[in-house]
Amino acid sequence: MEIGSRDQPPKHEEKLENGSRKWHFHGKQEMNRASSLSVRGILKAITDNLNGADQRPTIMLGRGDPSEYPCFRTTPIAEDALVDAIRSAKFNCYAPAIGILPARRSVADYLSEDLPYKLSPDDVCLTVGAHHAIEVILTVLAQPGANILLPRPGYPYYEAVAKLSHLEVRHFDLLPEQGWEVDLDGLEALADDNTVALVIINPGNPCGNVFIGCWVARPLLKVAETARKLGILVIADEVYGHLAFGGNPFVPMGVFGSIAPVLTIGTLSKRWIVPGWRLGWIATNDPNGILQKFGIVESIKSYLEIAADPATFIQGAVPQILEKTTGCFFQKIITVLTEAADICYGELKEIPCITFPHKPEGSMSVMVKLNLLVLDGIEDDMDFCTKLAKEESVIILPGVAVGLKNWLRVTFAIEPTPLKDGLGRVKAFCLRHAKKE
Amino acid sequence: MEIGSRDQPPKHEEKLENGSRKWHFHGKQEMNRASSLSVRGILKAITDNLNGADQRPTIMLGRGDPSEYPCFRTTPIAEDALVDAIRSAKFNCYAPAIGILPARRSVADYLSEDLPYKLSPDDVCLTVGAHHAIEVILTVLAQPGANILLPRPGYPYYEAVAKLSHLEVRHFDLLPEQGWEVDLDGLEALADDNTVALVIINPGNPCGNVFIGCWVARPLLKVAETARKLGILVIADEVYGHLAFGGNPFVPMGVFGSIAPVLTIGTLSKRWIVPGWRLGWIATNDPNGILQKFGIVESIKSYLEIAADPATFIQGAVPQILEKTTGCFFQKIITVLTEAADICYGELKEIPCITFPHKPEGSMSVMVKLNLLVLDGIEDDMDFCTKLAKEESVIILPGVAVGLKNWLRVTFAIEPTPLKDGLGRVKAFCLRHAKKE
Ligand SMILES: Cc1ncc(COP(=O)(O)O)c(C=O)c1O
Ligand SMILES: Cc1ncc(COP(=O)(O)O)c(C=O)c1O
Repeated sequence: MEIGSRDQPPKHEEKLENGSRKWHFHGKQEMNRASSLSVRGILKAITDNLNGADQRPTIMLGRGDPSEYPCFRTTPIAEDALVDAIRSAKFNCYAPAIGILPARRSVADYLSEDLPYKLSPDDVCLTVGAHHAIEVILTVLAQPGANILLPRPGYPYYEAVAKLSHLEVRHFDLLPEQGWEVDLDGLEALADDNTVALVIINPGNPCGNVFIGCWVARPLLKVAETARKLGILVIADEVYGHLAFGGNPFVPMGVFGSIAPVLTIGTLSKRWIVPGWRLGWIATNDPNGILQKFGIVESIKSYLEIAADPATFIQGAVPQILEKTTGCFFQKIITVLTEAADICYGELKEIPCITFPHKPEGSMSVMVKLNLLVLDGIEDDMDFCTKLAKEESVIILPGVAVGLKNWLRVTFAIEPTPLKDGLGRVKAFCLRHAKKE
Repeated sequence: MEIGSRDQPPKHEEKLENGSRKWHFHGKQEMNRASSLSVRGILKAITDNLNGADQRPTIMLGRGDPSEYPCFRTTPIAEDALVDAIRSAKFNCYAPAIGILPARRSVADYLSEDLPYKLSPDDVCLTVGAHHAIEVILTVLAQPGANILLPRPGYPYYEAVAKLSHLEVRHFDLLPEQGWEVDLDGLEALADDNTVALVIINPGNPCGNVFIGCWVARPLLKVAETARKLGILVIADEVYGHLAFGGNPFVPMGVFGSIAPVLTIGTLSKRWIVPGWRLGWIATNDPNGILQKFGIVESIKSYLEIAADPATFIQGAVPQILEKTTGCFFQKIITVLTEAADICYGELKEIPCITFPHKPEGSMSVMVKLNLLVLDGIEDDMDFCTKLAKEESVIILPGVAVGLKNWLRVTFAIEPTPLKDGLGRVKAFCLRHAKKE
C-alpha cells in the first residue's frame, strides 16, 4: 500500500506504544497448515524454484488443467451456450441454493443414461465445481469423533478440507501391483462405529486407473458391499467420469447405489476442459432413500443455503451444454488423451530410475515410482521435483503430496510436442543425476 | 428416484432387519438451524403461504435482486466484457486462489479512487460474491472464545455463518430516531478482550441509511476510533457502495483505515445489478499493515487456497467492467432507485399502522415500524408477512429476520408500476385488518 497525499486523516499513530498496540485478532494457524496440504500449495512451493534465467518455456506436468492448449479447447457448443445465457439477461439474478431446476434436471438426465434407475432433479445439487462439492459433503459429515476413509494415493484436497472441519482421516491403500485396486481388507480393518464414509475416485486421480465396474469382475461392487457391511456411505468422485481410454469402460458408482448409498461428485471441468467455469454437482444415488432418512440430504441442502453458488448464467447454460455437446468432441478429447498417455508411458518407462506399475487408462495423470538408489544427490521425491523445476523448468507433483513418498504424479494432459519436450527433459535430468558405477 | 428396469443389481435388501439397518452417518442439526436464519430460508417460509388461486402476479419486496426488471438491466458493457472473456478462450483455466492479477489490480484502482491512499493488487482478493467474502472473513476470525459485534437490525447471513463457525455474536443497536446511527456507547459496553471485529454495513441494509463520512460530522470516524480503542478490526460491508441518493454521499470506511484496520467487502451484484454473476472481493484497507502483522491476511489467503473461486472468465471480465462502465449507467440506476424510494416513502407513510422513522437514502431497502395496536388479529411481524403473502401475494421480509421484531424490511428496488401495485396491496391489507373503533 502506498500512502497518497490527498485528504490525510488526522494522525493517531502517536497513541501507540512503539506501534505494538494490542490488537485482539490474529491469524489461524490451522488454516495456514490446511492450505499447505493442497496441490495448489505444493505446486507453488515447487514453482518458486524455477530458474528465471532458463530460456526454455516452463512445462507444467503437475496439474489437471489442459485448457490453455488448442487441442484441448472446449467445444463451441459450450461457449455458445454461455453466451446465449448471458445475452438472454435471464440469468443475472440470484439462483436457488441448490441450483436452478432446468440445470438440475439436465444433470439428472445426463447421469441417468448410465444408471439402472432414473435420477430426479431433486437428487442433484449444483456446486462451485467439484472442489466445492467435496467441501460441502465433508463439512456435513464432520461430526465430533467421526472419521472418513480416503484412498492412498489420493487427492489432497480431501485431507485439507477434513483437517479444517475436524473430520478424522484414515487411509486405505490402492495397490499398484493390482492395477491400483482398493485394498478392501485393509479398508475394513480401519473402520469402526465412527466411520461415516469412504471415498473412491474413478477414473483415478492420481493413478490413472479405471475401476472395473461390471457385475462379474466387480471391484466396484465389492466396494459397495464393503460400505454396506460397515454401515457407511460411498463418496464417488467422478470428476474424470468418461475420460477412460484403456480397456475398462467407465462405470459410475451410482450403479451400485441400491447396495450402499452413494453421493456422486461431478463437474464440467474435466470432460469439457473448462475448470475455470466452476460448475460441479452432487448427485444422490440412493434408490432406497437412506441418505434422505438419515438427514444427510437435508443437511447438504441446508448447508447450500449459506454456501457459495455457481454463477447463475453458467447454470443457465448447463442444459444446452449437456444435451448438445457432440460425441465427436468427446471422442476428440479421448483421442488426444490416449496419445498423450501413450507418449507418457513410452518416454518414462525408458528412464532407469522410474518404474511404471500400470499404464494409464483414464483421467489425466499417472503415478510412477522413483528409484532413489540409482540416483546421486537426490534425497526424495520433493527434492527430485524441486531440482527438476530448477534445472529443467519442468513441474511434476511429488508423490508425497498425494500420500506416496518417493513416487511422482505426472499429468500428461498437455499437447504432444511440449509433453515430449518435458519428458525428454525429465530423462536428461535423471541421466545427469544417475549414480556413476 | 424411480427404479428403472435395465441391469437390475442383485437384491440385498433382504439382509436388512426391517430396513432399519444401522448406518453410521447422520445429518447435522446445527447446519439445518444455521440455514433457517438466512433471508433465503425465511423468505421461503413466507412464500410457502402464497395462494395459488390469486390471479394477480406475486410482488416480491423481500429481496435485493431487481435484475429481472428491464429498467434495472445491467449495462451492455458488462455483458460484452463477459462475452469477450469467454470468446477469448483465455479464461477456461483454474485461477489462482486469490484471483487473477488484472482483476485484482482493477478492483484496487476502482476502490482507490475514493481513498486518501492507493491500494495495490495484493490488497485485494476475489470471492464468489460478497456472501463468500463474509464466509471467508468470519471463518478466519472464528477462534475459540472469540466474539464479533454485529449491527441490529442487520444482515442475517452474518449470524448464520457465525453460528456455523462457532463465532459468538453480540449485537449493537442502530438508532432509528438518529437516522440509524451506531449506538457507540452500547457497542463499547459489549466488547471485551475476546472481541475481534465489528461489522458496519454502509449504505445500510436493511435500514436504507448512508453514514455520514466527512471528517467534520464524522460518525464513521467515530466508529473507527472506537474500533481502535477496543483493539478490533472493522468489517465494512460496502455491497451497496455508491448506491446513495439522499443527502449523504457514500464514503468508504477504508478512508479511516489508518485509524483502525478495515476489511472492505464489495461486489458487482448491486451497483451493476448482476447478483447472479457471483463476483465479490475483500480489500485490505490498512495502511499501517496491522492485518498483515497479526496474520489475518495470511489466513485469508490460506483459506482461499481451499475455498471456492469465482469463475475465471468473470474475473477476466472485471477490468473491462470496472474501467468501461459509464457514469451514465450508474446515474440511470440511481435515478430509478431514487424514484422507487420516493414511491415507497410516499405510499407507506400514508398507512396508519406503519411508521417511517427515516426516509431511505441508499441501498435497496428500508425499515418501517409496525403498530400492532391498531391492527386486528395480527400477532406479530411474521404473522403480518405470512397473511400478506396469502391474501395479497406480496412478499415482505419480517423485521424479526433482521433482528427487529414487529418491524418490516421493505425492498423497494423493483419497477415503479409493480412497486405501486404492491404497496397499494399492503395498504389494502392494513386497512382491512385495521381495528374498528
Ligand atoms: C479427484 C478430483 N476431485 C475433484 C477435483 C476438483 O474439480 P473441480 O474443477 O470441478 O473443482 C479435481 C480437480 O483436479 C480432482 O482431480
Ligand atoms: C449487506 C449485504 N452483504 C452482502 C450481500 C451479499 O452480496 P453478494 O451478492 O455479492 O453475495 C448482500 C446481498 O444482498 C447484502 O445485502
